[in-house]
Amino acid sequence: MVYLNGDFLEKDKAFVSVMDRGFLFGDSVYEVLPVYEGNIFCFKPHLHRLSESLEAIKIPNPHTNEKWRMTLQQLINYHPQHTNQSIYLQVTRGCDTDRKHTYGKLKPTVYMQSSPFEAVRKEDFLSGLSAITRDDIRWSQCNTKVTSLLANVMYAQEAKQNNVEDVILCRNNIVTECSSANLFIVKNGCVYTHPKGPHILPGITREVVLECADYYNINTEEVTISKEDLLDADEVWISSSTREVLPITKIDDVLINQGKVGGIWPLVFDRYQVEKSLNS
Amino acid sequence: MVYLNGDFLEKDKAFVSVMDRGFLFGDSVYEVLPVYEGNIFCFKPHLHRLSESLEAIKIPNPHTNEKWRMTLQQLINYHPQHTNQSIYLQVTRGCDTDRKHTYGKLKPTVYMQSSPFEAVRKEDFLSGLSAITRDDIRWSQCNTKVTSLLANVMYAQEAKQNNVEDVILCRNNIVTECSSANLFIVKNGCVYTHPKGPHILPGITREVVLECADYYNINTEEVTISKEDLLDADEVWISSSTREVLPITKIDDVLINQGKVGGIWPLVFDRYQVEKSLNS
Repeated sequence: MVYLNGDFLEKDKAFVSVMDRGFLFGDSVYEVLPVYEGNIFCFKPHLHRLSESLEAIKIPNPHTNEKWRMTLQQLINYHPQHTNQSIYLQVTRGCDTDRKHTYGKLKPTVYMQSSPFEAVRKEDFLSGLSAITRDDIRWSQCNTKVTSLLANVMYAQEAKQNNVEDVILCRNNIVTECSSANLFIVKNGCVYTHPKGPHILPGITREVVLECADYYNINTEEVTISKEDLLDADEVWISSSTREVLPITKIDDVLINQGKVGGIWPLVFDRYQVEKSLNS
Repeated sequence: MVYLNGDFLEKDKAFVSVMDRGFLFGDSVYEVLPVYEGNIFCFKPHLHRLSESLEAIKIPNPHTNEKWRMTLQQLINYHPQHTNQSIYLQVTRGCDTDRKHTYGKLKPTVYMQSSPFEAVRKEDFLSGLSAITRDDIRWSQCNTKVTSLLANVMYAQEAKQNNVEDVILCRNNIVTECSSANLFIVKNGCVYTHPKGPHILPGITREVVLECADYYNINTEEVTISKEDLLDADEVWISSSTREVLPITKIDDVLINQGKVGGIWPLVFDRYQVEKSLNS
């Protein structure tokens, strides 16, 4: 079952008008919320980011947080067979009567779906993952989580074709993030990640990862990272809501830490599991 | 009547699945073709650009040019009451069974609609139009005509709110184009426009405008234009399929040519009308 504008219905019966600005212009925002054993992880930060995305592109928030939580919980309850769920939530600017770039007052379209997902298992990642680097051609407002995602789609497909976990993006030799994940490096015991700003998504998982490092009194710094810093790092991690925090041990043809997962990732990974249980 | 995946139907009965990648990811391309008295203007260049856009993002072209022409003509024939029509044509990567950035083999979605439009009348523009300048935050593949258009939507809305014709975009002090139009300046009798490349759309109308200048043996050069060059120009024009070629006489708070339309624009405008009749 999916949710569309007030109704719960089968996914193959969920349709939007060709006049929906999500379809015509990628004029919409989205969130992906992980649900562990029926409970939404980091509900408030996700809803806060949603409201900031809506505000950034001037779509009125169609629901209060209470209404969002209630509707999300209804959707979750439709899928009791799934221990973990990944909820996709999209709000478009709505439908107009004709196609024009400009807009007046419209009723936003709200779409939500739940997909089952397997929580990450540490033992699957002890050998590390691979990534490739590419120039970051995306727009300069990556901090707004919008569905004008074609660049990200192209990177994801390139990762798939190269049989790697993700593409690491570089803008003027500064490593920003991945196509759908934030990026961290560890050097001499300190964890570094790109500062918040227009060139990265302010990841909810990114925040939790920084808190996990804090928990062990590991220093964290939000600074720009050059491609050379990246390739010379002791550890490289990526983070996203559904992938949590994963180790990268090969980038392009370069082995990170001689191709071995470092010592800090397992600590942060373990603490992340605790955060999940505390927060849920 | 609109066209959707083989059917002609009323626009308010035309729906796409929420799983359409045009809706979820802005994963689609489009064209806008002007039709004068039943004939498509510049059919071949538009279809050529469509095939290049599809190729750039690796969507298979669902139709031959013959099939496109036949279907477009059917759509046009449904609207005999409209002397001029603007045809919007969109091809998405299609629908998958679930939302994921990557894609396999899918059947593209084809949507087309016709809107009536008034051909530009010279006498309406003898006083010139206004524009504002903004930083170009769009992605670095503006030569592909994709529907991940949120940045363009935001600029168009800003133009509307500022009561100006369009936003002129500057990337590192280089003037690229407008939110949905190409840009030209005239200085000392020569016409300049940004070279083709990743930062501008290769406009069909842009080519016709250059040919119109050629007709009068006016020199044309495709070179980068600084913001200072723009504000110091003798004439500034914008061009698009539905707006043809229009004069800009005020940019931000600066008057161009003391706020008066220059002497070359009327020539080019007149020749454009001849091209329309020759090509149709």
